[in-house]
Amino acid sequence: MNIIKGQKEFFKGIGQIEFEGQQSKNPFAFRYYNPKQVVAGKTMEEYFKFACSYWHSFNGDGSDPFGGPTHRFPWDESNDPITRAKDKMDAAFEFISKMNIPYYCFHDVDLVDYTDNVLENEKRLATIVDYAKEKQQASGVKLLWGTANLFSHRRYMNGAATNPDFQVLTHGAAQVKAALDATIALGGENYVFWGGREGYMSLLNTNMKREQEHLAQFLHLAKDYARKNGFKGTFFIEPKPCEPTKHQYDYDAATVLGFLRQYDLLDDFKLNLEVNHATLAGHTFQHELQVAIDAGKLGSIDANRGDYQNGWDTDQFPNDINELTESMLIILEGGGFQGGGVNFDAKIRRNSTDPQDLFYAHIGGMDLFARALLTAERILEDGEYRKIRTDRYASFDRGNGASFEQGALTLESLRDLAVEFGEPQTISGRQEYLENLINRYI
Amino acid sequence: MNIIKGQKEFFKGIGQIEFEGQQSKNPFAFRYYNPKQVVAGKTMEEYFKFACSYWHSFNGDGSDPFGGPTHRFPWDESNDPITRAKDKMDAAFEFISKMNIPYYCFHDVDLVDYTDNVLENEKRLATIVDYAKEKQQASGVKLLWGTANLFSHRRYMNGAATNPDFQVLTHGAAQVKAALDATIALGGENYVFWGGREGYMSLLNTNMKREQEHLAQFLHLAKDYARKNGFKGTFFIEPKPCEPTKHQYDYDAATVLGFLRQYDLLDDFKLNLEVNHATLAGHTFQHELQVAIDAGKLGSIDANRGDYQNGWDTDQFPNDINELTESMLIILEGGGFQGGGVNFDAKIRRNSTDPQDLFYAHIGGMDLFARALLTAERILEDGEYRKIRTDRYASFDRGNGASFEQGALTLESLRDLAVEFGEPQTISGRQEYLENLINRYI
Amino acid sequence: MNIIKGQKEFFKGIGQIEFEGQQSKNPFAFRYYNPKQVVAGKTMEEYFKFACSYWHSFNGDGSDPFGGPTHRFPWDESNDPITRAKDKMDAAFEFISKMNIPYYCFHDVDLVDYTDNVLENEKRLATIVDYAKEKQQASGVKLLWGTANLFSHRRYMNGAATNPDFQVLTHGAAQVKAALDATIALGGENYVFWGGREGYMSLLNTNMKREQEHLAQFLHLAKDYARKNGFKGTFFIEPKPCEPTKHQYDYDAATVLGFLRQYDLLDDFKLNLEVNHATLAGHTFQHELQVAIDAGKLGSIDANRGDYQNGWDTDQFPNDINELTESMLIILEGGGFQGGGVNFDAKIRRNSTDPQDLFYAHIGGMDLFARALLTAERILEDGEYRKIRTDRYASFDRGNGASFEQGALTLESLRDLAVEFGEPQTISGRQEYLENLINRYI
Amino acid sequence: MNIIKGQKEFFKGIGQIEFEGQQSKNPFAFRYYNPKQVVAGKTMEEYFKFACSYWHSFNGDGSDPFGGPTHRFPWDESNDPITRAKDKMDAAFEFISKMNIPYYCFHDVDLVDYTDNVLENEKRLATIVDYAKEKQQASGVKLLWGTANLFSHRRYMNGAATNPDFQVLTHGAAQVKAALDATIALGGENYVFWGGREGYMSLLNTNMKREQEHLAQFLHLAKDYARKNGFKGTFFIEPKPCEPTKHQYDYDAATVLGFLRQYDLLDDFKLNLEVNHATLAGHTFQHELQVAIDAGKLGSIDANRGDYQNGWDTDQFPNDINELTESMLIILEGGGFQGGGVNFDAKIRRNSTDPQDLFYAHIGGMDLFARALLTAERILEDGEYRKIRTDRYASFDRGNGASFEQGALTLESLRDLAVEFGEPQTISGRQEYLENLINRYI
Repeated sequence: MNIIKGQKEFFKGIGQIEFEGQQSKNPFAFRYYNPKQVVAGKTMEEYFKFACSYWHSFNGDGSDPFGGPTHRFPWDESNDPITRAKDKMDAAFEFISKMNIPYYCFHDVDLVDYTDNVLENEKRLATIVDYAKEKQQASGVKLLWGTANLFSHRRYMNGAATNPDFQVLTHGAAQVKAALDATIALGGENYVFWGGREGYMSLLNTNMKREQEHLAQFLHLAKDYARKNGFKGTFFIEPKPCEPTKHQYDYDAATVLGFLRQYDLLDDFKLNLEVNHATLAGHTFQHELQVAIDAGKLGSIDANRGDYQNGWDTDQFPNDINELTESMLIILEGGGFQGGGVNFDAKIRRNSTDPQDLFYAHIGGMDLFARALLTAERILEDGEYRKIRTDRYASFDRGNGASFEQGALTLESLRDLAVEFGEPQTISGRQEYLENLINRYI
Repeated sequence: MNIIKGQKEFFKGIGQIEFEGQQSKNPFAFRYYNPKQVVAGKTMEEYFKFACSYWHSFNGDGSDPFGGPTHRFPWDESNDPITRAKDKMDAAFEFISKMNIPYYCFHDVDLVDYTDNVLENEKRLATIVDYAKEKQQASGVKLLWGTANLFSHRRYMNGAATNPDFQVLTHGAAQVKAALDATIALGGENYVFWGGREGYMSLLNTNMKREQEHLAQFLHLAKDYARKNGFKGTFFIEPKPCEPTKHQYDYDAATVLGFLRQYDLLDDFKLNLEVNHATLAGHTFQHELQVAIDAGKLGSIDANRGDYQNGWDTDQFPNDINELTESMLIILEGGGFQGGGVNFDAKIRRNSTDPQDLFYAHIGGMDLFARALLTAERILEDGEYRKIRTDRYASFDRGNGASFEQGALTLESLRDLAVEFGEPQTISGRQEYLENLINRYI
Repeated sequence: MNIIKGQKEFFKGIGQIEFEGQQSKNPFAFRYYNPKQVVAGKTMEEYFKFACSYWHSFNGDGSDPFGGPTHRFPWDESNDPITRAKDKMDAAFEFISKMNIPYYCFHDVDLVDYTDNVLENEKRLATIVDYAKEKQQASGVKLLWGTANLFSHRRYMNGAATNPDFQVLTHGAAQVKAALDATIALGGENYVFWGGREGYMSLLNTNMKREQEHLAQFLHLAKDYARKNGFKGTFFIEPKPCEPTKHQYDYDAATVLGFLRQYDLLDDFKLNLEVNHATLAGHTFQHELQVAIDAGKLGSIDANRGDYQNGWDTDQFPNDINELTESMLIILEGGGFQGGGVNFDAKIRRNSTDPQDLFYAHIGGMDLFARALLTAERILEDGEYRKIRTDRYASFDRGNGASFEQGALTLESLRDLAVEFGEPQTISGRQEYLENLINRYI
Repeated sequence: MNIIKGQKEFFKGIGQIEFEGQQSKNPFAFRYYNPKQVVAGKTMEEYFKFACSYWHSFNGDGSDPFGGPTHRFPWDESNDPITRAKDKMDAAFEFISKMNIPYYCFHDVDLVDYTDNVLENEKRLATIVDYAKEKQQASGVKLLWGTANLFSHRRYMNGAATNPDFQVLTHGAAQVKAALDATIALGGENYVFWGGREGYMSLLNTNMKREQEHLAQFLHLAKDYARKNGFKGTFFIEPKPCEPTKHQYDYDAATVLGFLRQYDLLDDFKLNLEVNHATLAGHTFQHELQVAIDAGKLGSIDANRGDYQNGWDTDQFPNDINELTESMLIILEGGGFQGGGVNFDAKIRRNSTDPQDLFYAHIGGMDLFARALLTAERILEDGEYRKIRTDRYASFDRGNGASFEQGALTLESLRDLAVEFGEPQTISGRQEYLENLINRYI
């Protein structure tokens, strides 16, 4: 790790996390994640593009709807907002470097506290962006994506781009403009839109159609601005249902893809999928991945996990071996991420109050991804899994089945074939066999 | 009621259901549903186009995953499939006529039992269709829509149009062709596709993309066939998540609209929305209605209710006054149904075993719709509800807000306006006021 | 309203809420709630014992996990904690008086801000309790119940009475002692325990048995202390699942009753049931009411509503006519509340930011309760509903059925009766009829 | 395997399943389950007491609410009910023997088809019980538990022991008597009560208290009869919420324990816990296990898994490595099963139609249990997991904490200690560390 000269050290006594291999019993070491090991044609580091999220790790204070902060950060003590922001950035880059994480992600207000004044906010952001540039250069850590927080401030309580009040919308635009400028300045590889308050609390007071048209218009303007100003990266939309409103417009992958298609945004936007958001939408994460891949739009993922029995975003660190192995199978087969990577949009528990807990959480998460990737690679290489799936659709690869796919048959001709075929044979889906097969490799 | 001469009477001792007005204490009378009363420019009968569903009311035997039949039908006793089918149809038209329901809906296999032989099935269906024609003529009852059941038979266990086996798909096509022929022959005003098994049980054995392409192709062929053969009505897709597979492709309104748009089917298909399906998808029924209306695609509805705390389709009869009033508000404002109406896709409970129970259930459902319509009409006429909603978006009706809508502003110009505006005023969403307002009218 | 001389007025321009009757169109008036009208042998005021909850109405700032405060209170501006507390109390009593609400409820930390120092907290609480005494006397408003907040402070992140650290438990005890003292001093009619953090986040680090034994011991000590110090009221436990921990020990009514029975607390504790907590536990509110009533333990209720499709406590104000009517039927038949009443543990929405919104919310809630009570009373008086239910069990009121109930039959004798009876007749549950019957009265 | 001379062979070409060790790639072999390997002081076979459930494996035809049978069994072809029953039993014992499963479980109606006539049913059951005796003797397979199906027949649509009609209750008693006789005759080690229809569909027509009292009375009579007739085994209650009624009285472990305590049945009954039932109740399976163990009442388990995103019992075979490992940790620490074992109350998927699928499903399930046991044993042996949990409660093992546990402190003395202690230190719950620890051993 290269700590910039003179920077404060906040995680004293905690050293660099190293790869020690599967036999290691050291809980402060990676057993599977070996940044330079090549898998599927890339180093693990390149494949995953792991990113640390600023908000959970350096702003997340452990508070919840029933209680105040439990995580008290030494970098949060100065009364001067800029000093506080720089201290936090020192802590962030120290942590990220010690963890061997190649990327980070942020919202504008994660980096530095905002006020109610647009000009002051722009100035503050510019200052901390300059500092971030130095930190990136010194450490080699890169920016996976930036974004603007258009949901926490009081003014966005009825939405930002979908707010019924045009004035509020303009403030959203001001924030996005500044966040795009920051992302471009820092060489950010992507830019994310999560519509935190873009939805409704009650249909009784909502013109849903007009709100969605505003959202589409807003995204067009943001994209045009970024392109004009040299942004070459990818734009992501992050689907999420239910939270924080009753209904969020970007409900799930299929809903967002439909929206992008309807409003002529499909060429410029890809999806940033989150595990816990899939859970809340009633889908498996695997499903959401497949939907995005089938549309050629898997941009990036937010790695975490929810609680299947609580109806909100618990954003816990990944620990489900089966879920992650199946997910990596789909991602590997789908060709990986388009532009993005694996951002840990995950938080340590309210009662995980030791400085070490943040390390353990990320070690567990990164190691499980590495393990899942290695397992998935072996499953695909051995071939049986792929073959079973391919063979299952063989009747469409030839003859009348292929003609049907090519549009050469009519409903009548299909009916005639049914008469000719008679009652078809019953063909097992072999689900249990396939489930066992996966577990054999874990 | 006009019972065809010589037909069997199955609901003996139960007479015609009449409108008696709100003061009536007679549980066998309508208090709100007055078929000839004009509301919103049409008679109630025309407005709602109430339909009785054949499957629940005349085939639904009360069985569930934990127990066998409890409803034993006198029309189900003959050993000859055609006689049995005619007896059932006698019972159906008797019930529908006594209830003053103007329409009915069916799946092919509701009308007559199918075998494993395509030709025999076509013959059976044609026979009962001839009988239905007579019954329709004699009673004045019309066909709201027909459909083919592509989910109950063993062969569809892996899907119909999305089955990995081309042979199974051809059987689906044969059934749809015959069901379209029947619908056309009976003057059916619409035709419905519900993809009962179009989805997957496990992603491990599924090529989702290929399956969805097959589904789209199948719908194109069905539509082309119907149009070529003179069908002038509307095609509906009925969204549903979760049941009976883990994931149904037609998950919800937004997903289906996205699919139709992607595969160039949007001009020919509209949505048939079901209350309980909305519930299962994590949406309110009101939401699904609004999504369809905003796309100009509200075709028809399947009226029922689910249990918000059980995760499956209970298909109970409607009884929630608030839910239905809010739904009728949206339907009224949205211009009503396009082609379709209100089909009671609802079943009496497993333990509702008296012949009267079927009457009570429909009386309750129809009366509640009528009450909700009358309430919603008053709310809209009084104007305050509409005004609050309209005023809320007034900042987009003029000046820069209007320019934004017209695409005349850039992100930079919005940002400049934010600077100029300063921090916006906080504007209440007034949700509690609006909720009280609705309850004041009920 | 009697405002104490010299107190600040915070809701200027908003007058007394009056009963105007069902024809009234005035949204600032009651249409059903007539405090002095006699229903079921008591005035409505006495029957319901409506209470305003301090926390939501005067501390709830509209913040949620995704955003900061939106409700900014004029009574919250002073820098002196005691002045701030008194201003808030002025506002509270002004609101409560204008609304004709006869009771209020509080947690210790609602009344005045706490510090980390036990002695200072006791002093602060005593000071504001003195002020509350004056306010109660001047206004006639009474204390329905008090409680201690053992969940918001950082120290309770692992529980209070169930904390693995004994020191934390002692702090919980100190708070409960002071809150009991305050409740006694203010003539509080009941005292509530809600185990906000009594549960676990992960079983991996939890000794559930030991924690539950600590909880039982703690409740015994609290009860003994209160009785010794002259408290004559009722102790309530408030069940809740899921929030804020993964598993709350007081999951639902049945679980709490089992716990009380196991640990010999059943004689001293009753239940305080909340609508939204029932929803989260997968039960209807009606179910929870019936469970409590069947055990003779319905103490009080927390009136609100949840969103059946979000998995967290939305604590919205009641507006569901069917739910409340059915609930009032059960409460009326069950003999009403034992000690408690109807506390509005409900909050206006994050975006309900007008001072009026708080009034509308309470007007809507109180009026709906009154309407439901009046409807339920008529249903019970007319007798059919009761008769259907009673008749359904008639076979146990006489003969062998009665003998069975009295324990006079064996399994063998029952078997012999089955042989004698032969296959029983099928008897309909008549659910749809009963549902229609309820709606006829609404 | 010892096949009785002359019995039919139904799974031709499928041989004995053997243990081949972790390196094996053979999908028809066990890799972890080694029946004679000693773990935790017993052979795996003794520890788990795996049981095959008759209903899913030999009666379950793949039908669901949306479709008819897909599994067509060669043992189901005879028109004579007794021959059919014997063929099925041949198939069952062949399968069970080939799989090395030491136990089986049944409902009365699984063994042989019942009629509406009590005497005829008793006769049929006696006949097949005689046959079962022979089969048990020849094969060495034992009966883990028997039960009576009081939910499938039409007559139980309103419940069995809780039916409002006394006549129906007597039929339930007749069935239970015969099933107890059969269980005793076959040396069944336990007897299970699952209250399939003991609950309500609507509270509107239900007297919950009276129904629950009937249930308690019924259980007392059944227990007395069995004890009088020499049954030495354990009685189990199997909790389940939601299905098939809206509310099941045996909702979850805590509810059942409360019921048993209230009605003086706690000494004679233990719990049979099912994974999928825990899921439906909003609990983890681990939670339900811990609740039962803390009460000393973990009798047996029904092994399967649900879908966390579907609201019904999917009863799939276990395949979740994390869930099962954590469960085995709790079971091992809790001292294992009291009387019972691991019954696969699981069914192959509707579309798993190959004879092999039943084998794969059981191989996967048994092997995963064995793997989880081995992993859990290592975790406990290594000691760190246990130590972290024990240390966490150390403050109650000595001094004032211990005095509190012994009841030697008052609320006032606890308060005084709080003053003395001052603000406690913040102690991390270390959840992520513990989660990583578990995954390190998998």
